[in-house]
Amino acid sequence: MKISAGEIYKSVELIRRQSPVVHNITNYVVMNSTANALLAIGASPVMAHAEEEVEEMVNIASALVINIGTLSERWINAMFKAARQARKKGIPIILDPVGAGATSYRTKTSRDLIAGEPPTIIRGNASEIMALYDDKSKTKGVDSASSAEAAIDIAGKVSEIYNCVVCVSGETDYIVDKEKIVKIKNGHALMPRVTGLGCTASALCGAFAAVEKSAFAATAYAMAVMGIAGEMAAESAAGPGSLQMHFLDCLHCLCEDDVSRRLKIED
Amino acid sequence: MKISAGEIYKSVELIRRQSPVVHNITNYVVMNSTANALLAIGASPVMAHAEEEVEEMVNIASALVINIGTLSERWINAMFKAARQARKKGIPIILDPVGAGATSYRTKTSRDLIAGEPPTIIRGNASEIMALYDDKSKTKGVDSASSAEAAIDIAGKVSEIYNCVVCVSGETDYIVDKEKIVKIKNGHALMPRVTGLGCTASALCGAFAAVEKSAFAATAYAMAVMGIAGEMAAESAAGPGSLQMHFLDCLHCLCEDDVSRRLKIED
Amino acid sequence: MKISAGEIYKSVELIRRQSPVVHNITNYVVMNSTANALLAIGASPVMAHAEEEVEEMVNIASALVINIGTLSERWINAMFKAARQARKKGIPIILDPVGAGATSYRTKTSRDLIAGEPPTIIRGNASEIMALYDDKSKTKGVDSASSAEAAIDIAGKVSEIYNCVVCVSGETDYIVDKEKIVKIKNGHALMPRVTGLGCTASALCGAFAAVEKSAFAATAYAMAVMGIAGEMAAESAAGPGSLQMHFLDCLHCLCEDDVSRRLKIED
Repeated sequence: MKISAGEIYKSVELIRRQSPVVHNITNYVVMNSTANALLAIGASPVMAHAEEEVEEMVNIASALVINIGTLSERWINAMFKAARQARKKGIPIILDPVGAGATSYRTKTSRDLIAGEPPTIIRGNASEIMALYDDKSKTKGVDSASSAEAAIDIAGKVSEIYNCVVCVSGETDYIVDKEKIVKIKNGHALMPRVTGLGCTASALCGAFAAVEKSAFAATAYAMAVMGIAGEMAAESAAGPGSLQMHFLDCLHCLCEDDVSRRLKIED
Repeated sequence: MKISAGEIYKSVELIRRQSPVVHNITNYVVMNSTANALLAIGASPVMAHAEEEVEEMVNIASALVINIGTLSERWINAMFKAARQARKKGIPIILDPVGAGATSYRTKTSRDLIAGEPPTIIRGNASEIMALYDDKSKTKGVDSASSAEAAIDIAGKVSEIYNCVVCVSGETDYIVDKEKIVKIKNGHALMPRVTGLGCTASALCGAFAAVEKSAFAATAYAMAVMGIAGEMAAESAAGPGSLQMHFLDCLHCLCEDDVSRRLKIED
Repeated sequence: MKISAGEIYKSVELIRRQSPVVHNITNYVVMNSTANALLAIGASPVMAHAEEEVEEMVNIASALVINIGTLSERWINAMFKAARQARKKGIPIILDPVGAGATSYRTKTSRDLIAGEPPTIIRGNASEIMALYDDKSKTKGVDSASSAEAAIDIAGKVSEIYNCVVCVSGETDYIVDKEKIVKIKNGHALMPRVTGLGCTASALCGAFAAVEKSAFAATAYAMAVMGIAGEMAAESAAGPGSLQMHFLDCLHCLCEDDVSRRLKIED
């Protein structure tokens, strides 16, 4: 699969023009920063987690992002309910299995969601992706690194079984389905020092999937835009505080030239 | 009603001097940014949502702000309990019906709150205000625009029935009660690209209402200060990330000259 | 007890090298900013509040931070469960009794936590600390000031009864145990205008306690680093918005020279 800077930017323009509603059931830590990133790229975020309203909210949305970063029982019920409705309606579902592998509660919830209401896209770091399938790996926490290769292997299996796209993110982002792998090498070492940029990546997958037919392309576009905006932000950042601020500004101001000059992709 | 820059600034000084406690029962997305805006203008925010403590918290507060942005059953119970106590104690209640019209859960909760414990001030965008009264309008989401005129009409009706001030915010902010309308034309196009600035406006209504006898004047002052600080912030912002930061700085540093040079009001 | 800049900085380096997992059960308002501060200093924050997983999360953590800023029943249960497990495992527990004294719910919860699962470190402002022991004081809210001397007295008593370190924070921070007091005079007047910097201080106590044997030293180091980073941030800040951003950058970039030139300690 060939992915060009031109196609990526065309997709950014689509988001800006259509301003798709992205429904997020996400964790408390990143709600604000995720909403701001979605607004900065041009989408319309909504956050709603009550069982009483998630189906209706899905009905006005073009994508559903489920993030298990701060779980509890009622939120899990709402996640299932929303995912069921999203599948019925035919909009993409993005799952971010935050901390899968760190506790059995998170591992089980991720696996149950994947088995019960298979998402369109799953994005996580290596240890989270490995936890979706393999009990032998144990996460140190939500930020831990793990062998990327092993994770790509699991990503391929999960992709095949559940017919979804899996992104293993890290220094290199691997976008995987049963037939192909694309690698994105954008990004900056300071990015993991800002909380929730992984969650933001998943939310951006939602924005791109809302306007693109191919979930695989949407995931690659989202990861490329994340990395490029992160690199640009890092150039004028004095640390993680200013990185976060510049990142939103860069998402908002991103132009075609930024994408074409910076894109580092192997496909 | 004549509103002058001098009166607005006098009210800002009152907030800075009295540092009124503003009790917020608000949504997860904006808790941090709302608290920061209240601190920046000089108020003392408290956030508490447990049924076990909302009444006691209301008792030490000078205003209560209720925002339905991320609802669930127990929070609704606490909202009613807090509002009842606020009315008993005689402090102003500000309601922000976030997403009313987007789901029936939000529409119903807003209407029930208004009918059960009429607020002093209601602030929302056009589609949210229309949803308080008229089933025929349907919101695209929390950020959707809708005809301002129709919303002003509804605002007048709601104001008359429930004896409250209604603010329809947007490019122009309309402050409405049964007898009069004031228009504030401050603000900047980048502001809706930052999540929760509408919620911040409602919180500021709480701060001004805490120190002013006239709820109508307090609402107009709050919306003017929002718009003016937003404009000032936009002048040095490179995008929504830096806008948000400068906005807090501008609220904190706001001086009389800023208000008198920039105020755009039609009364 | 003699505390030197060199020791403080050595501890910062330990955090950066070990990247200890700090498990936070904290309030909605500060989750994002707390996680960012922990990342900026070099620690690995995790946030988890479900009874189903707190014990397992404690098991991969090197410190547990409990903050009662936005309480509700299920969260309280999780706090007790996590604290019990932390004591069993022998990792430090930091308690931030946000708003104790403001409502009886918060006062009772703080006292119950202290009596039931005595923390290693308690950090609060004067009125919060006083509420841990004395019914006669009444808080205006979470930001209220109160007589520091009276609070230090209570801090000593609490420290003696429960064998823990107590920090009374304010313009001067007092670190107290049954035998000694250390005073830290770093910090800046703008810091209380940013929401949750007190909560951040408690979270940093967790990071330092995770790498230091002496809880007393860890608390002093954390408060010194808070104050120093705050001072540095204030020098380039135009208000509370930019202070917050620079504060994270300064935590991230803090070098030994910053500590040794700026440290204001009385021990």
